[in-house]
Amino acid sequence: MKSINQVAVIGLGSMGMGIAKSLIRNNVSTYGFDINLAACDELKAYGAKQVGQNATEYADQLEAVLLVVVNGKQVEHILFNGETPLAAALRPNTVVVLHSTLAAEQAKQIEQKLEQYQLKMLDAPISGGAIKANDGKLTIMASGHPDLFVALKSIFAATSERLYQVGDEIGMGSTVKTIHQLLAGVHIAVAAESMALAAKAGINLDLMYDVVTHAAGNSWMFEDRMQHVLKGDYSPKSSVNIFVKDLGLVMETAKALNFPLPLASTALQMFTAASNEGLGNEDDSAVIKTFKGIQLPKKVKE
Amino acid sequence: MKSINQVAVIGLGSMGMGIAKSLIRNNVSTYGFDINLAACDELKAYGAKQVGQNATEYADQLEAVLLVVVNGKQVEHILFNGETPLAAALRPNTVVVLHSTLAAEQAKQIEQKLEQYQLKMLDAPISGGAIKANDGKLTIMASGHPDLFVALKSIFAATSERLYQVGDEIGMGSTVKTIHQLLAGVHIAVAAESMALAAKAGINLDLMYDVVTHAAGNSWMFEDRMQHVLKGDYSPKSSVNIFVKDLGLVMETAKALNFPLPLASTALQMFTAASNEGLGNEDDSAVIKTFKGIQLPKKVKE
Repeated sequence: MKSINQVAVIGLGSMGMGIAKSLIRNNVSTYGFDINLAACDELKAYGAKQVGQNATEYADQLEAVLLVVVNGKQVEHILFNGETPLAAALRPNTVVVLHSTLAAEQAKQIEQKLEQYQLKMLDAPISGGAIKANDGKLTIMASGHPDLFVALKSIFAATSERLYQVGDEIGMGSTVKTIHQLLAGVHIAVAAESMALAAKAGINLDLMYDVVTHAAGNSWMFEDRMQHVLKGDYSPKSSVNIFVKDLGLVMETAKALNFPLPLASTALQMFTAASNEGLGNEDDSAVIKTFKGIQLPKKVKE
Repeated sequence: MKSINQVAVIGLGSMGMGIAKSLIRNNVSTYGFDINLAACDELKAYGAKQVGQNATEYADQLEAVLLVVVNGKQVEHILFNGETPLAAALRPNTVVVLHSTLAAEQAKQIEQKLEQYQLKMLDAPISGGAIKANDGKLTIMASGHPDLFVALKSIFAATSERLYQVGDEIGMGSTVKTIHQLLAGVHIAVAAESMALAAKAGINLDLMYDVVTHAAGNSWMFEDRMQHVLKGDYSPKSSVNIFVKDLGLVMETAKALNFPLPLASTALQMFTAASNEGLGNEDDSAVIKTFKGIQLPKKVKE
């Protein structure tokens, strides 16, 4: 396969926008699509070749489509189920790259459907957050046919600082991302559990934070998310509902493998309880509010 | 209270030995006690004023006693229940420092008993491991009367790089340590759960480790303990049974506060299952062996 240079990014949220801008900076012919026209305008001004709400009208110009939408349902809608399904419009051998986080099983099903249209696919979840997306420094954990990695080499070089070639089989990339989210979700939930216990025991929470972040009990998520609790600021960086979804994918993965996950299933119940309490759109650290009978720091007005 | 300079260290395991040597290097008159005579000889050669199996015979020379034994039961035996209970022999106002990890309730009970002998007490759990103990760079999280912190200032300066004065009330130091152990234990258990799932899904474990340790799903414990799994080396640095004990203390603390801990209680069951399988004296990362139907790395013979 020849090197790819005509690329659409579908989904111009913080991650997709960062990816698209990184491509433009690296002289890739970049098309950007989102239902949000302001995002389209922003990318057009940055140097996109074309932008719009519907990729299908440009389908015959594309060599690869990077999907950076919220979930598998949106991926399926864009490719197969909308009024103008993209899969039916793309030229044979166009590469569809799934950057969204899906269950491995769903990624496999999508690959099989794409095959019917003679389209190629890479299962390529990303992590790193909006800032790294913007800087072209994402982590990509991808699986699929090795030829596709060769064809997309310069694309991934533009958007990522770490590319893991997980295996040949679709679903393995998603599984690695899912396992990462298992850890992320449990670490947030246990950070909340530990700080809630400290509050109940009358321990100064700033002191508790200082002890943990200088000791072997630390995690990336404890250090990051418990700052939100200390500030009483639950404006969402990543929301409770994202972990209801991602730990849901974890449990789907485990079910497909008939594998027990005692801690992940418990953490999912904690995030679900938080969502059920109406905290779903707050920061994921708001899972601490499911612990009652404690006083948490209030937000200081700036 | 005047500054303290005649100090006994009881329990010359890796932590107590490091503490005693740090005191000697800082010109504190140090007495060392352990039932292991080789440890006594080692400390004597390092410059201890006196060593032996029984601190009671030197009780009238001591200003402070640092207890660095394995658990609360040993603390109670030495102070109150042995043939020559130390509490009965110490001079009034001698300071007993509990460096061992106990439940907050037990620490409070010990303080009350010591009061009957006119003895002072600090609740002062430590963390950091053998190397930091040896270098005088432990973390101490202590609670008790502020005067005792003043009197012990040079002692703690010799043994620690971080001293947290958690509060005036006995039990608060133990609670902070206990909450730290909650995080440590859950992080080890979830690290095992995630790597077990990766093994079941056919993901290369070295790749999985690399992804996690460069991303937001990382924890201190994941990074440290999963190296043991990758090497197939379960020789104990810290054992499964230590987390059966420490998560047991976590649950005692929670019970005393009538507080729910969904993740810590699940992790305790996982370590208990591991111990019940005969893995109690293996490295705590051996909790991964409770997950069946997977192939884990075997130890490479050196």
